[in-house]
This record gives sequence, C-alpha cells and structure tokens, in this order.
Amino acid sequence: MVLERVKQIAQQLTGTARPSHPLDPLTFTEIESAVSILRSAHGKLYYNAVTLFEPPKAEMVKWLTGPEDAAKPDRKADIVCIGTDGKIYDGVVNLKTSAIEKWEHTPDVQPLITMEDLQAVEHVCRVDPKVIEQCGIIGIPASEMHKVYADPWTIGYDERFGSGVRLQQALMYYRPHVDDSQYAFPLDFCPIYDATKGEIIHIDIPKVRRPISRAPPQNYHVPDIEKEGGYRTDLKPLHITQPEGVSFTVTGRTITWQNWSVHVGFNYREGLILNDISFYDRDEGRQRPIFYRLSLAEMVVPYGNPEHPHQRKHAFDLGEYGGGYMTNSLSLGCDCKGAIHYMDFDFVTRSGAASTIKNAICIHEEDAGILFKHTDFRDDSVVVTRARKLVISHVFTAANYEYLVYYIFHQDGTVQLEIKLTGILNTYAMLPDEDTKGWGTQVYPGVNAHNHQHLFCLRINPAIDGYETGNSIFQVDATPGAGEVGSAENFYGNAFYAKKTRFETQKDGFGDYDGNTSRSWDMSNESKLNKYSGKPVSYKLVSREVPKLLPKENSLVWKRAGFARHAVHVTKYPPRRPPRPPNIRRASQGIPLWQSANPSAALANTDVVLWHTFGLTHFPAPEDFPVMPAEPMSLLLRPRNFFLRNPALDVRPSFARTPTQVAAGKAGKGDVDGVSVQV
Amino acid sequence: MVLERVKQIAQQLTGTARPSHPLDPLTFTEIESAVSILRSAHGKLYYNAVTLFEPPKAEMVKWLTGPEDAAKPDRKADIVCIGTDGKIYDGVVNLKTSAIEKWEHTPDVQPLITMEDLQAVEHVCRVDPKVIEQCGIIGIPASEMHKVYADPWTIGYDERFGSGVRLQQALMYYRPHVDDSQYAFPLDFCPIYDATKGEIIHIDIPKVRRPISRAPPQNYHVPDIEKEGGYRTDLKPLHITQPEGVSFTVTGRTITWQNWSVHVGFNYREGLILNDISFYDRDEGRQRPIFYRLSLAEMVVPYGNPEHPHQRKHAFDLGEYGGGYMTNSLSLGCDCKGAIHYMDFDFVTRSGAASTIKNAICIHEEDAGILFKHTDFRDDSVVVTRARKLVISHVFTAANYEYLVYYIFHQDGTVQLEIKLTGILNTYAMLPDEDTKGWGTQVYPGVNAHNHQHLFCLRINPAIDGYETGNSIFQVDATPGAGEVGSAENFYGNAFYAKKTRFETQKDGFGDYDGNTSRSWDMSNESKLNKYSGKPVSYKLVSREVPKLLPKENSLVWKRAGFARHAVHVTKYPPRRPPRPPNIRRASQGIPLWQSANPSAALANTDVVLWHTFGLTHFPAPEDFPVMPAEPMSLLLRPRNFFLRNPALDVRPSFARTPTQVAAGKAGKGDVDGVSVQV
Repeated sequence: MVLERVKQIAQQLTGTARPSHPLDPLTFTEIESAVSILRSAHGKLYYNAVTLFEPPKAEMVKWLTGPEDAAKPDRKADIVCIGTDGKIYDGVVNLKTSAIEKWEHTPDVQPLITMEDLQAVEHVCRVDPKVIEQCGIIGIPASEMHKVYADPWTIGYDERFGSGVRLQQALMYYRPHVDDSQYAFPLDFCPIYDATKGEIIHIDIPKVRRPISRAPPQNYHVPDIEKEGGYRTDLKPLHITQPEGVSFTVTGRTITWQNWSVHVGFNYREGLILNDISFYDRDEGRQRPIFYRLSLAEMVVPYGNPEHPHQRKHAFDLGEYGGGYMTNSLSLGCDCKGAIHYMDFDFVTRSGAASTIKNAICIHEEDAGILFKHTDFRDDSVVVTRARKLVISHVFTAANYEYLVYYIFHQDGTVQLEIKLTGILNTYAMLPDEDTKGWGTQVYPGVNAHNHQHLFCLRINPAIDGYETGNSIFQVDATPGAGEVGSAENFYGNAFYAKKTRFETQKDGFGDYDGNTSRSWDMSNESKLNKYSGKPVSYKLVSREVPKLLPKENSLVWKRAGFARHAVHVTKYPPRRPPRPPNIRRASQGIPLWQSANPSAALANTDVVLWHTFGLTHFPAPEDFPVMPAEPMSLLLRPRNFFLRNPALDVRPSFARTPTQVAAGKAGKGDVDGVSVQV
Repeated sequence: MVLERVKQIAQQLTGTARPSHPLDPLTFTEIESAVSILRSAHGKLYYNAVTLFEPPKAEMVKWLTGPEDAAKPDRKADIVCIGTDGKIYDGVVNLKTSAIEKWEHTPDVQPLITMEDLQAVEHVCRVDPKVIEQCGIIGIPASEMHKVYADPWTIGYDERFGSGVRLQQALMYYRPHVDDSQYAFPLDFCPIYDATKGEIIHIDIPKVRRPISRAPPQNYHVPDIEKEGGYRTDLKPLHITQPEGVSFTVTGRTITWQNWSVHVGFNYREGLILNDISFYDRDEGRQRPIFYRLSLAEMVVPYGNPEHPHQRKHAFDLGEYGGGYMTNSLSLGCDCKGAIHYMDFDFVTRSGAASTIKNAICIHEEDAGILFKHTDFRDDSVVVTRARKLVISHVFTAANYEYLVYYIFHQDGTVQLEIKLTGILNTYAMLPDEDTKGWGTQVYPGVNAHNHQHLFCLRINPAIDGYETGNSIFQVDATPGAGEVGSAENFYGNAFYAKKTRFETQKDGFGDYDGNTSRSWDMSNESKLNKYSGKPVSYKLVSREVPKLLPKENSLVWKRAGFARHAVHVTKYPPRRPPRPPNIRRASQGIPLWQSANPSAALANTDVVLWHTFGLTHFPAPEDFPVMPAEPMSLLLRPRNFFLRNPALDVRPSFARTPTQVAAGKAGKGDVDGVSVQV
C-alpha cells in the first residue's frame, strides 16, 4: 500500500541516484556547476545564495500526478550575487542547458546577511579606533579589545542610511575570559558596519552612559558548573533503543511512514520545506494528497523598548539571515534519541565554493503515549493502543537564540509543527538597579533583557485530496445558537455550532485570532464531500499561541512585517516563487502587496496559500538566564471530515480484550489479549 | 539537599509505615473502621463516599512548616450515605477517637452517582415493559432485549422532577453482537430511572421516531480489525528502558525528584490531588513551597443540541460521577513505558465494604527532548542538555469518554497539566441523512455525534515561597505602550509591556480569556522580591485552550456550572472543604455563592484560590469514530522571577565544549566534551 507509493516515486526518479526529485535541494555538484557557469560569464562575484529554483507549480503538479505523461522539470539554480562594486544581482541558471536564463541588477535592496558576513564584523570592531574609544569610555582598556565581542544584526531599516547600503548593527559584549558568557556583559553603544567598505561608518551612543558591569560572570559551561558544586547525580539512565532500526523508508528524499509520504526539501532561507505530503487511505485504497508545500516562510522578533536605537531590534531571522544557513550540524552531538536518519545541507560560500552542513536534518521516531483507549465500564473489556510519531527537525542558531523546529507526523493523520525556543536572551547594558520602565527585566546585575515577541509565519499550500479543484479557506468560530433562553428554538440556552466564514477575495483575505471562540481555520476541498458527514474533506489549522503584533499600525515593524499584521492571510498561490531574495527592505513586499495588487481575486475553490502567524510574547525573567530552558509552542493540522473513520484503527494495540473474552474468563488470545505488549 | 527534605518528611511520619501523612487518602483499613463505627450507630446504610476529611489548612500548615511543634492532625473520614429510605446523610468520623463528629440529614440534594449506581440501570431497562415497548417501536424485538444497553447519566436537573429524587437518564444503545460497539447503534428514546425505587419512572420519546440503524457495525476490537485485513506490520519496536530503575524516591506518598517534592493524594471525586509541592533551590539552599494543593475540582461537558431532552446532556464528570471512582486499573495493561511506580486507590462500596483499584496512579519518568541548547556561531562551542520529566497520571472512563490526566514536573521548575481525550463520542440516533441542523455531525450512517465542550476546572491553591504572607493574583496582558507612532515616547511605535492587574475583591474576582494579549495570570508573593528583577516571586499560569462557555447566561448549564462562567475565578481559601458532596443541584453552590456571600473580601496578599476553567470545543467528525485518537490539551505553571537563574543549569549536558576546548582542538574532555552521551 505505502510500498506502492514508494515504488511509484522510485519510478519517477530517473537516472542516477541523486539528484532525482525535482524539489530536491541543489547538490554540492550542482552548486559548483552553477557557480562555474556564472563565473565564466561574469567573473568574480560574491555569492549570497545559490539555491534550487523551484519548478513552476503547474509543471510540478503535472509531474506529481501523471509522471508517465509529464516531462521532468529542468533543474535550475536561483542565485543572488554581490558584485565587487557592491551591486546586487538576481539570476537563474539552467543546470541542464547551462544557460543563464536571468541576470538582473536589483538596485536599492539588500539580500540577507550570511554567516560569513556576520563573522567579519567583530574583527573590524576590535581594531576600529572609534570603537576602541567607546570601549575606553565605559571602562574597557584598549589592551582588552580581544575581549570585546559583536553579535552583528542586519540594520533592517534606518532612515539615516536608506536601503542602498549594505549595513549591519553590531550589538556589543565583553568577556572577562574567553569561556565566559558575553550576554552578562552587554555594552551600551552600537557600531554600524558597512559590508561593502568593510568599515564602521557610525556609532550610536546613548545619552546615559553605562560603564561595563563588574558583576561576576553568570555562566553555563561545564567547567563553571563543576566549579560551583558540579552536576546532579540522581538522574538514572533512560535508554531509547530501536534494535530493528527505523520504521520509515527513505527513497531519495521522500520519506514513507505509517501511510504518510513526504518529500523533505531544505533551503538556505526557510530551512525545512515539506512537499507533496500525502496519506495512504486504507478505506479508499488510494494515496490522498494533503499539502503541496509546507514551510516557515518568515519570522520577526520585535523588541519592545522604544528608545533609540532599540527599535532596530526586530530581526527577521529567516529572511535576513537564513534559517538554513544558521542550521546546526548535529554531528556535534545528536539532539535526538533512538535510531536517526540524517540529511546534509549543501550551500554556497561567499567565494562561490560549495560547502556542507553535515547532519543538518534529523529524522527519527518517538513514542507518543496513548493513541486511543476505551474501557467498557460494564466488564473492563478494553482496547489501548500506543502511538508513534515521526519527527523531521532542524535546529538553527540566530546569534543568541536557538530555534528548534519539529515537523511531527502522527498516525491519526495529524501534522504538528512544534517549535522550541532556547539559547540566550538578547541583553543590553543597564546601570545597577536602573529603572527598566517596564520595557525589560534585570535578569542579572547590569543586564537588561528587553521584552520581545517571536512571530513565525507558517506558509501552507494545501492540496486537500487532490490538485484538480482547488481549495477554500474557512474561518471557524464556536458560536452560541440563535434564540435567547426560553425561546422555542433554544429553550435551555445550550445551542451552539461551528460558524464558518469563507474567505472570498484577496482584499478581505485576512483575519485575526479569537481565543474565546476557539477560532480555527479549515482548508477544504468543496468538490469532495465526506460520505458520512456530507461536509467537504478538510484539514483544520488549530493554533492557540497567536499573539497580536504589538508594535502599532504604521510603526516601523508593522511596515516591514506585513505577514504579522494578522493571524492569517489568504492569497492565491503567489505570483512569484517563495524564497526569492532580496530580503532587507523598508516595507513588506510580500502578502499585503500581492493582495492589494489584485484585490478582487477570488479565493474560493482555487489554488490558495494560507499564511499563519503564530508565536509568543516574551517578558524575560531571571530563570531565562544565562541560558533559557526550552519554551515550547505547537500547532496542529488535523484531518476533519477527511477520513471515513479513525485512520489509525489498524495500529496494533498494546492491550485489548473483547467482552466475549472477558466473559469467557480468558487470560489471553494471541499477543493482544490479557498481556501487555511493548510495541 | 532534596534528601534533607525526604528525611524531614520521614521524621514527620510517625508510627507505622502507613497511613502516615495527614493528607494520605484513607486506607482500606481506615475505610473499614469508619464504616464499622457508623454501622454500630446507625445500622444499615448505603455508602456513597468514605474519603479523607482533609485537616483544616491552618492545622496542616502548622504541621508542614514546623512539625516539631505541631500536633499531627487527627485522621478523619468524610462520609456520604444514603439511608434505606433514600435520605441523604453527611457525616464525619474521627478515626482516632472513633467519635462521629457530624451526622446530618441533607434534604433536597443528591450525592454523586457511583459505578454501582450506573451498573444497576441497564438490567432494569432490559426488563421494563415500557422500555421493551419503545424498543419494539424502533425495530428491536423483545427477544433481543439482551442486546440493548444503557449508559446511565445523572439527570442533572430536570424541572419536571426537581432535586429531591435520585434520578438517572439512560442513554440507550444496541449491539447486534456483544462485541460490537454500541455507539454505532444509538436508540432514540431516553428512560428516566429512580435509584431509590429501582424503577423506570418515565421515558422521554422524541416526536420524530428513528428506527434502529441497519448499517453494518463500526468496530475497533481486535477480531474486527483482523477480519478486515489485520494490523499494519511496518512499525518496528521502540524500547524504553531504565536499567537502574527510576530516579525518584518514594517516602510514603511523597515523591522527591530533581529538586521537586510533592505529596500524591487521591480521592473519589477529584482523582489526583497534589499537595505540598515544593522545589529545592540550590542557589538559596532551601526547599521553597510553591503550591499547597493542586487538583481538578470539576468539569462539565455541555452538549450543543437544543432539542429536548439533549439539554440534560451536560455531564459534570467529576462532581456527578467521581474522577477517582471511574479510574482505570492499570494492571489491565500498563499505559506507560519504562520503570513505573504505581499507587492503588481504596474506596468504599455501596454496602460499606472497602475495595481497591489496583494501580490507579502511575508515576514514571519520560525523556523530554532538549532542556536547553546554545551554540556560539563563532566557533561552534556548544552546550546541549537533555530534559527528563516526571509524570503522575491516572486515566478515568466516563461512560463513553476516556480522560487521561497527566501532571508533569519539569526540571526547569515548570508544572504542566496535560489532559488527553480519547474514548468514544456520545452518539444519538438519526434518520439516514437527516439534517443535523449544525448541532451535530453524522459520523457514520445513522449516528449523530452532537457538538460539545469539555471544560475542566483546575483548582490552584498557591503558596508561592511560603505560607506566611499569602499571595496575590494578577491578570497579565501583553500591551502596546502609550504614545502614537511619531510621538516622543514611542517614536517608532514598537513599545510594549506586561500590563498587570491585581484581583482586589471577591466581587471582581473573575476574568475572561484574551488570546490577543496572550493573557496569563501570575500568582505572586508580593512580600518577596526577586533580588535581580525586583519583581515579586511568582508562578505564571499559561493556558491557551480557554474557550468561552457556549451555553448562554442564565441557561441551565450556566446556572449549574458556576466555575465555567469565566476563565478564572479568584476566591479566598474557600469557606468549606473542597471535595464535599452533595453534588447534584439545580444551580452552582460553589464559587459564585462564596464570592457573593462576601463581595468585599480582599484578595491581595492572602490565602487565595485560583480556579481556572480550560478545555476545548468539539465539533465531531468521522475520524473521531468508532474510537477517537487522543486529543491533547495542556497548560503550564511556570516560575517567573521565582529563581535567580535557570534552575536546571546543573543537569549534565549530553554534549558540550567551551571556546577554549574548541580552540585547543581537543577531541574531548571527560564525558561531556566531544562525545555524545546518552543520559
């Protein structure tokens, strides 16, 4: 059944083992080829991104739905370069024909800041006379400049400099010793770095100066913990083993597991991209599409301190730095237990060489507690079935913060996205017991951790039960019925129902969250009705961590983070490919522009994208420091009226007995009655 | 450190091994003693409850905080009986002195329905001529009455009968075969059963009759799945083992684990009760109280179909049936993996005998993913630490539904309550493709599953960092700062802060949920400020599944479910002991009455209870049938400004290396550098 799907995919994958699926990320060799083609044509360039140019959806859908009749889309590279003169170029190279299909200079925009861009700034800061001077003012002698550190952030947008210059702001810190946590020693000034010149062009200096903290370090590394009494010793081992290995099958980058099939993509910007997600429905005897593409499209982390220059702290961690580029190599200590399958990530360096993050993606299974249980109170006849889940994850480090991203597939047809935040708070200097004015918290003497939000945008392109007819998005609110208490229609006042409102046009294609109505959103294929319920086959987005964007309308953040203005936006399948740079602009170029460009575009029964912004608001506290215990958030994509019954009924129970078996006083039948089986 | 606490507790526990802690549930022997004392005084009685009479809090706090000076509170039994004439009695027996300290007839109320009460109804229905007649009308011949089943529910309140009679409503079903799921064959009429008479006194018959469904069964038992193709075979084993056993220590019923100490109580009504929860703070070198008592005080499941008699479907599963009484014995197949510690539950039967649910409570540890992680982007120096959690759980079956209750303790000081819903939808008969009018869903031919909510009330009696000074409750809203965009105070419009509003008096001691402000609630000890942040030491309630009670104001459900009218209620420590019956009334006798009885009572810096109503609204779909995949919901109690730093820093990392170690190119130092350790 699932095996059929594997075979089908295997047939679609022509030629050599890899690259094979049209949505596979560019390989090491493909990156080298693309660079080589460009180098021949344009000479020396600095490479910002060389990534898969995703084939147009129409072409892909043809290939996915009828591979025997469809041509396999050409492999192409989507490229962003910086000329030696600082000019930004946007290009496409066809890897099959070696043709440069596009090469454009894009003025007045900036592509994202890479890890190499970030690495450069600290070195420049340490030898810059103006930075040395500022360090001296707050108590760091010139002889200690090697103890000064910089976390460079993009400048985002600063009206004094505009968008035409490639700038970073250097958030400054100090380490008494190289192994000390710098975040306990923030500096009070902020150099501005011009990446093209390789120079500090300005320093933002606060009116009130804050000398470097003389508090003892607040550390988390092993030698520090050992020095102050060592580690607790009362945690006994807990082993998770899978002696027969994993339960999933990997064909190229397509994973099949427990009726699921999913293609695992990855790019420098979004990190994980899941494509062509489908489920084998045993009752219907067929593989049923659910999502064409699922990814985190963007995120923003606005900070709540209104004092200059803290308004610039609103990192777009995906668009401005790249969730893929910042991904941890899990060869440095695996973060998961049990049997693991890894995938690497190949990317381009500034010079144009290909490079690899080993073990960038982790794919593994976990036990997931009880899948379902029911006991008959009459006779204790019972079924209890244990759940397994499949987790596809990566971890990325955005300077101080760590983001742990887990796409989780459940046996009952649910897809869960879980994100955990850990790492270290962004910190700023404060005088001892200075008033933080409510914009931050003193988490350690001299350390002000500012209020902030983490707002993620999940981009969902549904294909609920097929690609032919399109989908519609409904807002669903739990709503009391009409009629007051005592009325004929609602005498006892207990009536309630699911009120559904369809998004009709792009101009109205947005909505906020309402916790009181347990608001959710249905992605429905209105042309296919569930045989039993008569309702359209659907997947429901259930998301409860949905704060409002707290920066005000028309504020700098509001302008730049279009996706974060509402909990959901609905657009037609976007007019341009999703991960396209350039990224750093004064105002959002995405959803709001697409919607306003075509306000009357109909959203019903068509190819739509549901953009969902979720996250949390973080008011720091000392227990988040010096390294923050992981804070989880989670959302679910749940089948509703999609299946004819619980699709996990055929997962073997760990314990079960029927009324007949109970009545017969049987101790057990086979391996499922009267015995507890470790599955 | 924690050991000291264990020793301290051990010292407090005088005499024989058990009973020992004043909050231990009554033992088998104590139940027998209480019944024997009552029997001598009052002859034959039917026993509804014999449970621990919890010592007055003042007495308990004395004992908890200074056991050497405090007398150990007497053991007492809290008793509800039904006389042979149907009269209800409420009593207290002192088990030390054998005195009956209280014995009162309580007219016009009814205590909860026990499992024995429930069991009786079906047998009566099967032989009742009026029920047989109704079965005949919808197509079940008299010869098949052994195939007719009843799930009896309390009647709640029905104006035709009042509160003075002990009534149950029998939701009726049919099984073609004894092993078939009855929920696919609901009957359309509803007999009313008088428990005192042991008779059916009335039958509610709908205007539109619905003949018994002739659809094939929709089953979940093993033989059925085997018949239709068998179980999937591609799930490879995943073993969780703890070769050295658990990491927690059990002293009587007090569990110490990873700095936590918690006493595990249990009663027939609330199920799990956690008392005297405290955490050993390594930095402060002392055990710090957090909560005096934590339990689920009540829940209600209102159904949304306004047609008579469905308004009566709004089960109070704790107060009307008993979450303890309905608890599954986990000796029938363990629901958890790894090393487990169980506790039994002793209770009274109707006749007055003591009985036991073996393995009622499950206590075990689980791996909990990443506790914290940080990588320095400069050099890949890193710490990654794996989390463990302690889970204290029970599972109870409320007729069709299963509730899985997990109190989870985390190493970072967080307490999590997770509830999973599984089991089977309550179903009602429908004609083929009858219009459900939006009040329900046809989940299978002839099966209408009505809309419903599950609203739980978590009762939190905080003791944040001590019992001396009391606590205050704050509503906390993430709020934009004052000043429009362009103003001096908020030029860039990005200001935001945590707006805190203290609950001042009982008359204002309630509040709703606001998802847009990420509303949370702080329990604070205002007399103790965090040394770094200057803020009161607090625990924050973070809860996101907080639907509004959908039945309208002054509706039957609204009147009866006082706790569910708002997301939070704050009261002074209640005037009466919490789990006291009687339970079945026309209108709520709890929170609203206590508040209105003393509206000006001050809530700040005193002994307060935070009552939190959370849950979900369920619009059924076919994938919830014939048995529902577990649907999770979760809330957190998180330390905020309670600790001076991350209290889990001394959990040994699974991988770590310092900048110095990276620079030295060391492969590893000890067991934490350069090697991945399975902890």
